[in-house]
Amino acid sequence: MTARITEVETIDIRFPTSRRLDGSDAMQAAPDYSAAYVVLHADDPAVPEGHGFTFTIGRGTELAAHAAAVVGERVKGLAVDEIVGDLGGFWRHLTGDSHLRWLGPDKGVIHLGTAAVVNAAWDLAGKLAGKPVWKLLADLGPEQIADLVDWRYLRDALTPEQAIDLLRRKRQGRAEREAHIRAHGYPAYTTSAGWLGYDDDKLARLCREAVEAGWDSVKLKVGADLDDDRRRCRIARDVIGPDRRLMIDANQVLGVEEAVVWHAALAEFDIWWFEEPTSPDDVLGHAAIQRRIAPTHVATGEHAHNAVMFKQFLQQGAIGVCQIDACRLAGVNEAVATLLLAAAHDVPVCPHAGGVGLCELVQHLSIFDYVAVSGSLQDRMVEYVDHLHEHFADPVRVSGARYLVPEAPGYSSRIRRESLRHYAYPEGAAWSAPEGAHAR
Amino acid sequence: MTARITEVETIDIRFPTSRRLDGSDAMQAAPDYSAAYVVLHADDPAVPEGHGFTFTIGRGTELAAHAAAVVGERVKGLAVDEIVGDLGGFWRHLTGDSHLRWLGPDKGVIHLGTAAVVNAAWDLAGKLAGKPVWKLLADLGPEQIADLVDWRYLRDALTPEQAIDLLRRKRQGRAEREAHIRAHGYPAYTTSAGWLGYDDDKLARLCREAVEAGWDSVKLKVGADLDDDRRRCRIARDVIGPDRRLMIDANQVLGVEEAVVWHAALAEFDIWWFEEPTSPDDVLGHAAIQRRIAPTHVATGEHAHNAVMFKQFLQQGAIGVCQIDACRLAGVNEAVATLLLAAAHDVPVCPHAGGVGLCELVQHLSIFDYVAVSGSLQDRMVEYVDHLHEHFADPVRVSGARYLVPEAPGYSSRIRRESLRHYAYPEGAAWSAPEGAHAR
Repeated sequence: MTARITEVETIDIRFPTSRRLDGSDAMQAAPDYSAAYVVLHADDPAVPEGHGFTFTIGRGTELAAHAAAVVGERVKGLAVDEIVGDLGGFWRHLTGDSHLRWLGPDKGVIHLGTAAVVNAAWDLAGKLAGKPVWKLLADLGPEQIADLVDWRYLRDALTPEQAIDLLRRKRQGRAEREAHIRAHGYPAYTTSAGWLGYDDDKLARLCREAVEAGWDSVKLKVGADLDDDRRRCRIARDVIGPDRRLMIDANQVLGVEEAVVWHAALAEFDIWWFEEPTSPDDVLGHAAIQRRIAPTHVATGEHAHNAVMFKQFLQQGAIGVCQIDACRLAGVNEAVATLLLAAAHDVPVCPHAGGVGLCELVQHLSIFDYVAVSGSLQDRMVEYVDHLHEHFADPVRVSGARYLVPEAPGYSSRIRRESLRHYAYPEGAAWSAPEGAHAR
Repeated sequence: MTARITEVETIDIRFPTSRRLDGSDAMQAAPDYSAAYVVLHADDPAVPEGHGFTFTIGRGTELAAHAAAVVGERVKGLAVDEIVGDLGGFWRHLTGDSHLRWLGPDKGVIHLGTAAVVNAAWDLAGKLAGKPVWKLLADLGPEQIADLVDWRYLRDALTPEQAIDLLRRKRQGRAEREAHIRAHGYPAYTTSAGWLGYDDDKLARLCREAVEAGWDSVKLKVGADLDDDRRRCRIARDVIGPDRRLMIDANQVLGVEEAVVWHAALAEFDIWWFEEPTSPDDVLGHAAIQRRIAPTHVATGEHAHNAVMFKQFLQQGAIGVCQIDACRLAGVNEAVATLLLAAAHDVPVCPHAGGVGLCELVQHLSIFDYVAVSGSLQDRMVEYVDHLHEHFADPVRVSGARYLVPEAPGYSSRIRRESLRHYAYPEGAAWSAPEGAHAR
């Protein structure tokens, strides 16, 4: 008997994080970290559920959940074996509906919904294989990895043949790298200290705690007021000392010329990267900024909506750091495409994380990148924010500023049922109880 | 008493066009032309309704309608005077919700929903002023026009001061141009002959009819099969003769290298422009194609999602023809931004039209462009497709391959109530009757 997907459950789940200004930055003043969450159910009880999601920040999450349901209609009735046996074909099937494509294409709400469904399918594939997703990926052959990717718009930068060649060259040393990452974990940096809504005392205290906890790279949110940013960068640099890395993140609030001016006013604090200086759509703008602020790196990607955008950022030398997002890209397949493009252009990938469960997902992508794609840890680190991990069944484990390798089968994407119930919007107790009701 | 918006009505309306393969191309094999439709209602019966929409092609239209409703929440309770008195501020208010912005930003379903609401507000503004929208725009002063635009990400290509200067220089001759366009109409071209689903006989017949009706520019859909395209281009060129313009449109199905090869195989048929050769996100790809197929023009824009994308296409010399879309850009304001950018880069704007009501809207934008922005008709023409105009209260009037100037107050955006009822999805008779039910 062939097991088939019979239901694509979608849940709008929101955490009232705006109550404490966790996650506040120059663009997002008061986010409620949220997810459009998907559970794939099959008609055979021996088939595990596949859990996936896309990350949002509050209002409008119902649109992403609705999009996941619409995309999910294309999954119902498919054989589980065929999905997990051809995840490249599955991705192209999901993104290949011409009517739905019109709503993007390959961007916005419909792409976020696709991400949630694709991530759920990878969780299912990992569980069926008895492997965490990073290991499932790393054990694939070069041709199988290349087949995960939709090459239609990428060949002018990288052909599948070139990708296969790159992957073949990285087969040597794979076992050693896997052993190394299992022993030492994957490097991380922290954003927990530097949210824009925190006052100077809290900033200084959190920077001090970060140093004591072993972090050697710290990121601050900037972009609302330049005098404030100078003061905050000075506090952070004083506390972390001259040898740790300080990164800044403007969350897209600046124009191209403004970003250059902003950077110049902060350069004395020795900035490692300047993240999201301007519109995520502006490849040429980022390239202009990168030329003018070097050797500081321009970093972007959490809002780069698909592999075609990353292709251009890399072709144009517009970024020194490539920040993939596991949920804005349409799931694992498009992240793999971007890892390949970045490796071919010799640009380090430092994924966007934080939010709800982004840390849980991107650790798999970066470990896979190290073991099988770039083969390097040089200048690579995964963002870490200490929020909301308690809701996950298999939360990230971070120790000594390193992500420890996840071992459980699947994509570490499962939120506990009691959390799904409690934070479901608007019916969960977190929102329907008086405290929640007025805080919206 | 101040009139306020009390209701933002949203309607999912779909026309079963897939039954005849009208609108078929290499990417969209069987579209059902649709709209997420918005009506603004005020609490004062003396205030007219504002009608607007965004265009979609079938499945997923409910997502765009839902997005319009979510964005519409930001309109409820606003004073009508404040909306129409500060349409630039209104646009920035609609696009300034940080939670909703996360779902784009400025792209995809949330941007489509915003377009529908913005277009409805402009219809309302035109009706209140007693002017068609093109005239409302053309009568604004340079500073007022510049204030319609969100300049945050555009200043590296064009500053508001430069835009004002450009508009001031075009004030001379405005009255003559207005008189000229009222007398002669705005040039148009036809796509009605060349849908991919039509057979050779129908193609030849429709091309012949187009010539007889006075059309001097004809567009064919290509991109599915190169041999078919060579045969179809030959038929079209034979019928229309050597002196009329032949354009081709691949609707994004090709990669960069493929597009160059495709063009080379069709170049002997003397192609005026090659439209949407590849991904609409690929600025650098279009630039590469443009360099290699000149003097044929690369044309794109119906899927360019915001002014930041158009900025880059223009900065990079990636397009010879700028094809704005009245409903993918977030309404009139972002179209005005793009008209200014195109004029500053001396690239003609030839709007995308067809679909549902796109002709009705873009005629206003192009007439405004001629009267007040570019001041030129050189190489400019608006797409025309003879579909679905009968559903509009103030349909376009095309005569001798020219759009006649719309005179009724508003944005020509109102669909008749009986059509809204009949084609409402899924409850309208067009879909709930047996014929419709199985055709989905």
